[in-house]
Amino acid sequence: MLRTTNCGSLDITAVGQRVVLAGWVQKTRNKGFMLWVDLRDRYGITQIIFDEERTPKAVLELAQTLGREFVIQIEGEVIERESKNPNINTGAIEILADQLQILNPSSIPPFTIENETDGGEELRMQYRYLDIRRAPVRENLIFRHKIALAIRNYLSNNGFIEVETPYLIKSTPEGARDFVVPSRMHHGEFYALPQSPQTFKQLLMVGGMDKYFQIVKCFRDEDLRADRQPEFTQIDCELAFVEQEDILKQFEGLTRHLLKEIKGVEVGDFPRMPYEEAMRRFGNDKPDIRFGMEFTELNKLAQGKGFGVFDSQELVVGIAVPGAAEYTRKQIDALIDWVKRPQVGALGLVWVKCNTDGSYKSSVDKFFNQADLQSWAAASDAQAGDLILVMAGPTQSTRTQLSALRMEIAERLELRDPNTFAPLWVTDFPLLEWDEESQRYHAMHHPFTAPKPEQLDLLDSDPKQVKANAYDLVLNGNEIGGGSIRIHNTELQQKMFDLLGFTKEEAQAQFGFLMDAFQYGAPPHGGIAFGLDRLVALLGGKETIRDFIAFPKNNSGRDLMIDAPTTIANEQLEELALNIRPIN
Amino acid sequence: MLRTTNCGSLDITAVGQRVVLAGWVQKTRNKGFMLWVDLRDRYGITQIIFDEERTPKAVLELAQTLGREFVIQIEGEVIERESKNPNINTGAIEILADQLQILNPSSIPPFTIENETDGGEELRMQYRYLDIRRAPVRENLIFRHKIALAIRNYLSNNGFIEVETPYLIKSTPEGARDFVVPSRMHHGEFYALPQSPQTFKQLLMVGGMDKYFQIVKCFRDEDLRADRQPEFTQIDCELAFVEQEDILKQFEGLTRHLLKEIKGVEVGDFPRMPYEEAMRRFGNDKPDIRFGMEFTELNKLAQGKGFGVFDSQELVVGIAVPGAAEYTRKQIDALIDWVKRPQVGALGLVWVKCNTDGSYKSSVDKFFNQADLQSWAAASDAQAGDLILVMAGPTQSTRTQLSALRMEIAERLELRDPNTFAPLWVTDFPLLEWDEESQRYHAMHHPFTAPKPEQLDLLDSDPKQVKANAYDLVLNGNEIGGGSIRIHNTELQQKMFDLLGFTKEEAQAQFGFLMDAFQYGAPPHGGIAFGLDRLVALLGGKETIRDFIAFPKNNSGRDLMIDAPTTIANEQLEELALNIRPIN
Repeated sequence: MLRTTNCGSLDITAVGQRVVLAGWVQKTRNKGFMLWVDLRDRYGITQIIFDEERTPKAVLELAQTLGREFVIQIEGEVIERESKNPNINTGAIEILADQLQILNPSSIPPFTIENETDGGEELRMQYRYLDIRRAPVRENLIFRHKIALAIRNYLSNNGFIEVETPYLIKSTPEGARDFVVPSRMHHGEFYALPQSPQTFKQLLMVGGMDKYFQIVKCFRDEDLRADRQPEFTQIDCELAFVEQEDILKQFEGLTRHLLKEIKGVEVGDFPRMPYEEAMRRFGNDKPDIRFGMEFTELNKLAQGKGFGVFDSQELVVGIAVPGAAEYTRKQIDALIDWVKRPQVGALGLVWVKCNTDGSYKSSVDKFFNQADLQSWAAASDAQAGDLILVMAGPTQSTRTQLSALRMEIAERLELRDPNTFAPLWVTDFPLLEWDEESQRYHAMHHPFTAPKPEQLDLLDSDPKQVKANAYDLVLNGNEIGGGSIRIHNTELQQKMFDLLGFTKEEAQAQFGFLMDAFQYGAPPHGGIAFGLDRLVALLGGKETIRDFIAFPKNNSGRDLMIDAPTTIANEQLEELALNIRPIN
Repeated sequence: MLRTTNCGSLDITAVGQRVVLAGWVQKTRNKGFMLWVDLRDRYGITQIIFDEERTPKAVLELAQTLGREFVIQIEGEVIERESKNPNINTGAIEILADQLQILNPSSIPPFTIENETDGGEELRMQYRYLDIRRAPVRENLIFRHKIALAIRNYLSNNGFIEVETPYLIKSTPEGARDFVVPSRMHHGEFYALPQSPQTFKQLLMVGGMDKYFQIVKCFRDEDLRADRQPEFTQIDCELAFVEQEDILKQFEGLTRHLLKEIKGVEVGDFPRMPYEEAMRRFGNDKPDIRFGMEFTELNKLAQGKGFGVFDSQELVVGIAVPGAAEYTRKQIDALIDWVKRPQVGALGLVWVKCNTDGSYKSSVDKFFNQADLQSWAAASDAQAGDLILVMAGPTQSTRTQLSALRMEIAERLELRDPNTFAPLWVTDFPLLEWDEESQRYHAMHHPFTAPKPEQLDLLDSDPKQVKANAYDLVLNGNEIGGGSIRIHNTELQQKMFDLLGFTKEEAQAQFGFLMDAFQYGAPPHGGIAFGLDRLVALLGGKETIRDFIAFPKNNSGRDLMIDAPTTIANEQLEELALNIRPIN
């Protein structure tokens, strides 16, 4: 061992000990006759002192050559520090060094290795190994480790078995965004990387494993929106002989355990909200309920008053922004510009100031009188001093736009407190959604989700109305998990595939093994999967997952550090029996 | 919840309780007026009784339709059993059922779901979900889970951080057997799946993570020998500021912990053996030391006596098989045939019986007299009653052949006791091996392994002689782990790449990021990786890993259950800009 202890553990009780430390030079202060080094490792920083009187001359001279990020080993005596630093563990002591070895020198790093660095994101990703030396990134990775281990132990103590499912599986064209892996041994054939272990966990239930979990990498080759990764980590779970209620209870337990263990936060029973209610009240199936500004539908109050912009629309809906009646014209225009950006795509905003004197001032005073505006305020529970913002348009897109505005305003008003945790179950999702483009139904969750048993008849008569035993766990406006009770019977699964537009042959070719399995005594079962990356980020008080992944890829799916993907050798293509098509 | 308890937990103290159970029909015994069902789930088997007098008629009639592997739910009262079964937990009770629901019927399974099944391996793999219902397979998976969790907790308690490294990395032609993944977004470019996270764990050390581990899937597209899988699981570990001794101690600790926790076996300090000694004494770098039959080199005693077969050879070497002097001519011929099989490839065997009367009888009596044979016996420590078997030929291949024979005989003599655990460190591996075919050096471990510091000069003058700080952990004749101290300095790494025949450009293109990283203060570091599949199998007393993998692939890398790999749709190939080459 190249050290007797680490750089984070020596305190005043160690004074007088001889120690060997190794680590990185965080910084040096050189007064010529005396030199201090802040020596850093994973565990902390310890101050090293070299001085003319007490340190051998050659050692002091060598110390004077040290640069940032040099890796060194020192030996010396722990002494009490004159000016103590109460902010760090080791702040009461320093090491009077009499030996020094440079284990490895360092070039000047391309950015500073400090909590606040001067490195831009691309540069930090290219030199990720240096970025990881910074305490915030390092602590994020340690935090992730603790959470993953806490999850494993909790689930294991609750009777779950972690089973590894294969990574080289079968491509399903329906998945569309599969990464595929050409087989060398089987000419012209491909494996696929799993988008999730969905069918395997269901087969484990058929196999009687009863309670399964796995923390597992999944892959999706989609055009990356901000903060998505082509490979991501899922906490994947499945249980047999359960109903929805059992699953919600079990994973509410897990989430509560993590909040308590990791964050020291106690939360009560998680509220539950049907999908339709979430859409109506928040315009969103993953509402952030840490703050209000709920939607108020104003169709009855605002239509038929001669304001054409409202009259022709499916939905007129508003939110009351607390204390924002004082916004200047400029501030309001900024909000209007914000919703008009292509990312939101709204046409505009109607605003109503609820003045503290009880009067109302709006952008539509021409069409609505004080009584009208007062009725809006009453309906949306706006108080004197609030600002009502109203949008109109087709129900779905208008909800989405107003929901985006609600979140943006909450951000600006600092209502999204990262230290408050507001979990929420959203339930009763529709089973299917109609896709205009392909003119057919898509599974809202996935094709294995069971319809509510009491609505089976509707599958033939009015499929759109059918709800699923499907649920999402939402935390602070982010979906952190989702799942469902599954179909466990061949006929129903076949009917689902029919509805989704699979031919019998397609269904058989892609999921024949699952339908076969259902012939041999499949138990009722259901499950859930959590996104570990996002869960960890949220528990860490952040919303960007990249900072909690050791080696993330950038927005075009590229690893800037190792420079992947790359071309491969012709011999390799030959072995795989592949040609690259010329670019048209 | 579809049950109040499971099928493995009710005992005599539960008599009188009303319970609901759910599970699979293991078997039924029908006497017409009375019917028993063995109901099975992951936790055990509980006997259910339906009878004419106490069970509603409709329920009894329904019970009479039950077939094997039907999934049912029953409700009833726990009663004491008349003829108890002391072999199972629930053997003292049975459930008098008054309600029965068939949750899912089952077709007749293609093989029996019993500890000893009538299903062949291919059939069991095709219906793996049924195979998993069998207690031995299920218990293997649970055993694997327990071991993985014990490893995680042990390493975590020892300060290791589990860090997830990426699966979509960069192809290294030197790896040759990479699985590659075409990128859709980057025309003509490919990711590769990791054969191990080697470079990433080294970068984590450069990043100051200090102690890293990960239980992680790795991939190798090689022609599968028996009992290899294209995807396999590694316990991957790396530490900074350590020397070989620290690593051996740490992982001896882990292994001892597992043997204690999981098997209840205490083992002392692990013996250590340099590679050269292992080769000389056992002909093998992973010797099974649970039994003797060590090699004795007989060149001095057996050459120059006019027996041409010996005289011309590089090595004459024998083993003494205990108690085998009584082997018949037929038995000995069988051994000779065994070593002549192409898998072993020996030319023959010379044998010497050490008779109990003190005389010797050999297949080469014409060339060697009793004194000669006695000297062989003395050298190889053969006792009266033993059989000496001797081979001759080139050193390396002869050792390999005799080692195979030694293992085969141990198997036949049942000396390989699966309940005895004999760990062994093999150390001081050569750094390089000369490859005749390509006429250049290959890294024996991998190109990042550090030469012994005191032998650095030999790298130029006589590379073959250089030993590495590399080590394998061997358990019962199987390599379960291997690792090394790594190079942490750019110049030495560059020199290694030179020796291995990389041009500067190739080295830069493939490992430039690692060499760059070494410029910025890389600490001394080293690590080890264990094969989890084999470790689990060995601890489970087996040597085939397939039984400890939930969904294994067959010898041609095919998943028989889901039928992968397969062809993919033309549209998918188009999106990936790939063509399949026609078969020549």
